[in-house]
Parts: sequence; structure tokens; C-alpha cells
Amino acid sequence: MTMRLDARMTDITEAILGSYAQHGNLQHLEGGHLPSRESIWQVVEDLLRLLFPGFLETPGTGSADFVTVTAARVRSIGRRLAGEIEKGLRFRSVCSGDDCRARAEAATGDLLLAIPAIRDVLATDISAAYDGDPAAQSYEEIVLAYPGLQAIAVHRLGHVLYEADVPFVPRVMSEYAHSRTGIDIHPGATIGRHFFIDHGTGVVIGETCVIGDNVKIYQGVTLGARSFQHDERGRIVKGTKRHPDIDDSVTIYSGASILGPVRVGPGSVVGGNVWLTESVPPETRIVVRPPQTMHLDQVANDFQI
Amino acid sequence: MTMRLDARMTDITEAILGSYAQHGNLQHLEGGHLPSRESIWQVVEDLLRLLFPGFLETPGTGSADFVTVTAARVRSIGRRLAGEIEKGLRFRSVCSGDDCRARAEAATGDLLLAIPAIRDVLATDISAAYDGDPAAQSYEEIVLAYPGLQAIAVHRLGHVLYEADVPFVPRVMSEYAHSRTGIDIHPGATIGRHFFIDHGTGVVIGETCVIGDNVKIYQGVTLGARSFQHDERGRIVKGTKRHPDIDDSVTIYSGASILGPVRVGPGSVVGGNVWLTESVPPETRIVVRPPQTMHLDQVANDFQI
Amino acid sequence: MTMRLDARMTDITEAILGSYAQHGNLQHLEGGHLPSRESIWQVVEDLLRLLFPGFLETPGTGSADFVTVTAARVRSIGRRLAGEIEKGLRFRSVCSGDDCRARAEAATGDLLLAIPAIRDVLATDISAAYDGDPAAQSYEEIVLAYPGLQAIAVHRLGHVLYEADVPFVPRVMSEYAHSRTGIDIHPGATIGRHFFIDHGTGVVIGETCVIGDNVKIYQGVTLGARSFQHDERGRIVKGTKRHPDIDDSVTIYSGASILGPVRVGPGSVVGGNVWLTESVPPETRIVVRPPQTMHLDQVANDFQI
Repeated sequence: MTMRLDARMTDITEAILGSYAQHGNLQHLEGGHLPSRESIWQVVEDLLRLLFPGFLETPGTGSADFVTVTAARVRSIGRRLAGEIEKGLRFRSVCSGDDCRARAEAATGDLLLAIPAIRDVLATDISAAYDGDPAAQSYEEIVLAYPGLQAIAVHRLGHVLYEADVPFVPRVMSEYAHSRTGIDIHPGATIGRHFFIDHGTGVVIGETCVIGDNVKIYQGVTLGARSFQHDERGRIVKGTKRHPDIDDSVTIYSGASILGPVRVGPGSVVGGNVWLTESVPPETRIVVRPPQTMHLDQVANDFQI
Repeated sequence: MTMRLDARMTDITEAILGSYAQHGNLQHLEGGHLPSRESIWQVVEDLLRLLFPGFLETPGTGSADFVTVTAARVRSIGRRLAGEIEKGLRFRSVCSGDDCRARAEAATGDLLLAIPAIRDVLATDISAAYDGDPAAQSYEEIVLAYPGLQAIAVHRLGHVLYEADVPFVPRVMSEYAHSRTGIDIHPGATIGRHFFIDHGTGVVIGETCVIGDNVKIYQGVTLGARSFQHDERGRIVKGTKRHPDIDDSVTIYSGASILGPVRVGPGSVVGGNVWLTESVPPETRIVVRPPQTMHLDQVANDFQI
Repeated sequence: MTMRLDARMTDITEAILGSYAQHGNLQHLEGGHLPSRESIWQVVEDLLRLLFPGFLETPGTGSADFVTVTAARVRSIGRRLAGEIEKGLRFRSVCSGDDCRARAEAATGDLLLAIPAIRDVLATDISAAYDGDPAAQSYEEIVLAYPGLQAIAVHRLGHVLYEADVPFVPRVMSEYAHSRTGIDIHPGATIGRHFFIDHGTGVVIGETCVIGDNVKIYQGVTLGARSFQHDERGRIVKGTKRHPDIDDSVTIYSGASILGPVRVGPGSVVGGNVWLTESVPPETRIVVRPPQTMHLDQVANDFQI
């Protein structure tokens, strides 16, 4: 207790360095570099500025040099994102030599070229928020302040990279949105147009979900897996279809959980707190029976909340 | 696949610029500037320093020059906040010329002048947290580390601007707190004294809620809307009363949802996971009947969790 | 309304300074300084870099000067963390004079010396995530992108300081993780090896929880208190055992709440949305009976979701 910190520093440093010599999973000190979470999150922020120009940067940009600003932004994003993707490809050893760089640049270029199409879909998502929330005052308010729009924008970017078999980067991008919004959408999920998540905190959308057009989801909704397959050695099986399909024009209220590879038919409504592990036909409204609440003085004294 | 990124940059930039020429909702490149989310969030952080001096800044400030520091802080907040409010007013075209600046300065000055009264109420909120959480060690710990206090402090600031019909800024302020705490309080909600949200992640409090004094709320509670009115053209009706009234001394446990313009009478307790769409009389304790849980070996083999 | 902001500044500043002269809980302007949240959160980020070297910093570090980098990092963390702990000890008046510094250095040194053991346990946590999530592609992805790992890493650090009776700092550390992940683990909770929280948003783990090895928890799970004891003056009693014990190899699915000082026996499974206030025997699977859902056209017209 009485030894001062300075006097213990050598022992501490040696102990920690000794620990680094052991675990394979806890450090990455040799060979190719891993993608950097910090760098990817900065790229995500620049991609959001590219998606919504004039909204997120402090100075408005309304004149001729906007072309120059945009060109420079595209170039900067391209260079940095290709670098992070290349690191991930090399680390996974799915390529070698200059081929890694070429593949990283191809994936990056394809994402950037997809931005106009992503903006087309995001325009429908903004309409969905305006149409679906009585508190929404304007389209601009939705871009500035709605976490659901931020989450789906990041998802639509990351999903393009996921589809191109880019390792690490899409999952790190989705965690950017999860950390800021509480909305956890796996980049593998397929999500249609005119999609709205209101409030959003606690929403989980799993990797193999397929969601149609005009779907609306509230806070705390889980679209998850029900049980996992294990192989003959008892290890969890990866990569199988295990999450729901949500058809067009479905609404899912807060706290509902839909689990397993089931289908919710078009036009159906899943009420709040429903726990659903079976498919639902089209145009069905499914609700939990109102709970049989009771006044507490009707129950045994030792029952407490 | 083989074309390098540099060679594609011109095409990419032109495609994105072409996209900017289309959608009205996705960019803001002309006319008056929008308020900046980044700037508003920095103002919020400075307002929190103003509310809790000596807590959030790194250097303690215990001497004569504290007066100078405070005066400079007030002046800086005032200038920046008035600028953001002015941008929002101009964008909404609710004023013109110098009138926008005057209105923005009036709203800003009124908020700053309300700070002593807001601090009076926040002192009761801190007591509520200390009285309501057995894990709370001291008032200081609550200011330093309790997300519920951060959320209600930002709400009490934003609500003053909401009441003054300031567009954009209050909603962007509430999203600052939502992003950091998972607590989503619409700036329109009216909330009384001695208010405590424990843990808080997933809490949603809607725009037209009215909450009395001495109310306590746990994580995952929704005070939301039940169904939306639509006009004769099928569009959602905005601005109507659609959220609950929670009277004095009500406690609402985790995961409960209270929906629609109902009233929970004074002194009532709403148990965890209750799904409530009707009013509750005063001094009532309402709980969900304990779920009929079962051991899994009692049910069909194909039933899995 | 017509008075410009500049002209109101003196009145505003004086009103706010007047408010500072009143409340004891809202400011900390005199005497010993409080620990700084900002400084503690920066120390947490450096501690995470120390736990997972090569993962979180931008430049990879694969060569001889890694020893120098690590030694400098340890020294910097030690100096800053000891400073924050010392401030907290002085503020609580649990020591005086040079004794505060000695105690702060002892607690800091003990935490740093515990890092190899903490890394041993975190290696099992990473395995738990890989074994427990079909979407996990690699150990590296888990370190880069899984919020549950970030939360448990911060908890394992903070718990060491909590056990050493360090005030303020552990609770501020846990709020760092809560703010970023939506996972709220009180630093007092005791948690065994091979622990996995999936998705995580909304998880609450209370101060007096004791959790065994190989436990798996999903989003929205509460391990909380059921009711609070009050003393003869009506004040809440602090410091008693009031949260559950979760034994080895228990799985708790999303949205379940387990409340009070109950015990869930080894190998048991608690299904989604279960509301549990009683103990559960070993090897038991407890699920909520599937809700009696209904199509909405079978119920009264005025029943709406």
C-alpha cells in the first residue's frame, strides 16, 4: 500500500507486456493492420455529409464552389475508405499483393456510384417519417434530428459493402449508428423503400431479415433469431437464414419481438409487446390480449412490484 | 472491376452532383441556412456547464475570476444560440428582415434569464434521484454520472424554446440527450418538479404529455400515442393531444407502456411491462398478473425459446 | 420583447450568479475539486487501448518501440487516473494530506497491475461472443464492433476500483459505457468469466448482482431491485443486497426482468419478456406462455392498438 506509483511502473509495464505475449484474440500487433474503427467512423460522418449536403456541415454551401467541395469530399472519402477496406481484405487473406488494393478500390467506387440510388431511397424514407409521425414538423427537421433516418442511411451504405463481401467495415459502420441511436441493424439485412423507425432505441434487426416497402417500426422491436443450429461438434452454425421476413406495408409497435425465419404477410399489424414465433397471414392485425391488470390491494400482502 | 478508383472519380462526382439537382428533401443548398446540429449540440454542452458550474469543466473555478468566466460563457452562448435560432426562423419564413434577429435574441434572452428558475427545479430533480435510488452515494455523483439528470436538464432548457415557438432548435437539443442517454423526451412535454428517470435507456415521452410533480420512471417506459387521426385525404393529423397525463407522485416501472390521451391519477403505481390504454384512478396500484411461466419440458418438443 | 440581447446581458449574468449563491447540489465552486467526467472518460479510452493493443489506435504497432509506447501509455494513464481518484477521495473527506495521494496511487497501481488478469478474463468473453452469435465472423470483429465487449471491459476495470472503495470514478466509468452502448452495468456487480451480452441496448445490471461463469444475456434484460427498504424516517435504505444472483451457464433472453435478491440456478434458461421475482431451480427453462394473440376484427371496434 505504501509503495508510490512511480516505483511500481516498471513492474506494471512488464506485467502488461508479458500479457501481450499470450492471448491471440486481444491484440493485433503484427502482420497486416486491422481497419481502424476511428477512421471508419469519420468516413461514415463524411458519407452522411455527402448524402445530405448543406445539412450537417456548419457553413452552408450554395454557390459555384460547391462543385469543388463535393469533388474534394468524394476524393477524400474514396481514398480513406479504400484504405480501410484494403486493410480488412489483407487481414482476412482473401487476396494478395496488388489485387487487394484493386478489390478495395472497386468496392469503394461501386459504393460511391450507388449514392444517387441510395439518395433516391432515402427520399422515400424521409417521406415515411413525415407521413408517420404527427410530431414531425418538416422534412428538414427529420434530416437534422431523427435518429431513425441516421440509422437507415448508415445501413443503406453499409449494406452495399456487405453485399460486396467487404469484411469488417460494414459491421463497424453499423455500430457507429447503434452507438448514436440505440438502433442495431446488421448490415446484412435487406430493407425496402419508404422505411420508418420511430424513436428507435432498442431496435434490433438481424442479419438475414428481409423487409419490404412501407414498413414502420417503433422503439424496442426485435427482429431476431429463435434458436441456433449447432454442428455435430456442438459449435454454432453460422450463415443460415434465421431471421424474419417482413412483407410490404407492415407496422410493428413498440416492444414486439418477432423471432425465427417466419413471415409477416403484407399489410399486417403486429401490436406492442407481441412475442411472435410463427408466421402471420396477410392483412392480419395481431395484438396481445389486454393484460389482466389488478389493483394491488386485491393480492397477497407479500406481492410487491 | 479493374478500373482504378482515380479513373472513376469524375463519373462518380458527376453522378452525385446530378443527384443533388433532384430531391427537394435531401439537401439544403440554397436560400437561408439551416441551424447546424453540431453548433446546437455545442451550445447544449455549454448550457450544461452553466447549469452545473464546477462540475463539467476540467479546471475548478472557485475564485473571483469565476464572475468573469460566467459572464463570458453567458455572452458566448447567447451569441451562438441566437444565431442558430435566427437561421431556423428565417428558414421557416415566420419573420423577415431584422425582425428575425430580434425574435431570436428575445427567445435566447428569455431562456438565459430562465436559468435560475430551471436550476431551482433541477435541485429538486437531484433530490428525487438521491431519494429514489439506493445506489446513489451523493448529490455530486448524480450530477456527474446520472443520465436521467442530463436528459431532464436538456429537456427543461429545450422546453422553454419550444414554448416560445422556436423551430428546429428544441428538437435538435432533445436529440443530443437521446443520443447520449437513450432517453427520448419530446421538447413539447410538460414535466413537473422532483422528477427522476432511473437508468433511462429506451424511455420515450411524447410531445403532448403532461407530467406532475414527484413522478418516477424507469428504463424502457413509453408514454406514447395510441392511434393517429387522419384527415379526409388520409394524411396524419398533426398537433392534437395524443399522449398521457401523469399526475403527481406516480411511479412507472420498467417496460411499461401508457398510450393515448389517458390519465394516471395521483399516487398511482404502474407495474413493470404493463400495457395501458385506459385511465387509472388515484392511489391505484396496477400490475400485470404474474405470467404463467412453465418449465420447458412440460410443453411440446418443437416449442423453443 | 424589443430589448436586444446585448442590453440584457448584465441582468442575465447577475441573475445566474445569484442562483449560484443558493443551491448546494448544483455547483461545485469551492473546496477540493471534483473528479472530471471528461478526464475520466479519456482515461477509459486509453485503458481500452491498453487492453486491446493494435485494435483501437490508428497506427499499427508491430515493432520494438511498442515497448516504449506501452510504457508511456501506462505512465500517462497512471498519472491522470491517480489524480482523478485523489480528487474524489479528498472530496469525500475519507483521507487527509498526503494520505489521499498515497491511497490514490495505491488504487491506481493495483488496477494497472490487474490488467493481465483482466485480459485473461476478457479473452474468455471474446470466445463467448464468438461461440454465442452466428453473425460473428471473427474474434477481431468482436473487438472492433461488439458493444457488449466494450461494456464488459469497462466494467471489469471499474469493478476493481469499486472493490477498492474508490468514490465517483467507477460510476463515471460505467456511464461512459452506458452512454456508448446502452448497457448499464453498475460497477458493484460481480460478473464471472465467459460472459456475453448480445446487442445490449437497454440492459441494466444492478449493484449487488452476482453473476457466475458462461452467462449469456440479450438486449433489454433487467437484473434489478424489486422494492426498496425504508428506515423509520421514511428514507430509502442504501447498501443492502437487493439484486439477483445468476448462476453458471444461465441464458436470459431479450426483455426479461429478474427482480429482487432471488437466485437463478445453474444451467437455467429465462425466456424473453419473462417477469421474474422468485428463485428458479437449476437446469430449468422458464418461458412466458405464448400470448393469446387475436386478430383485431374479433374484438370490439373501439379497441385499437
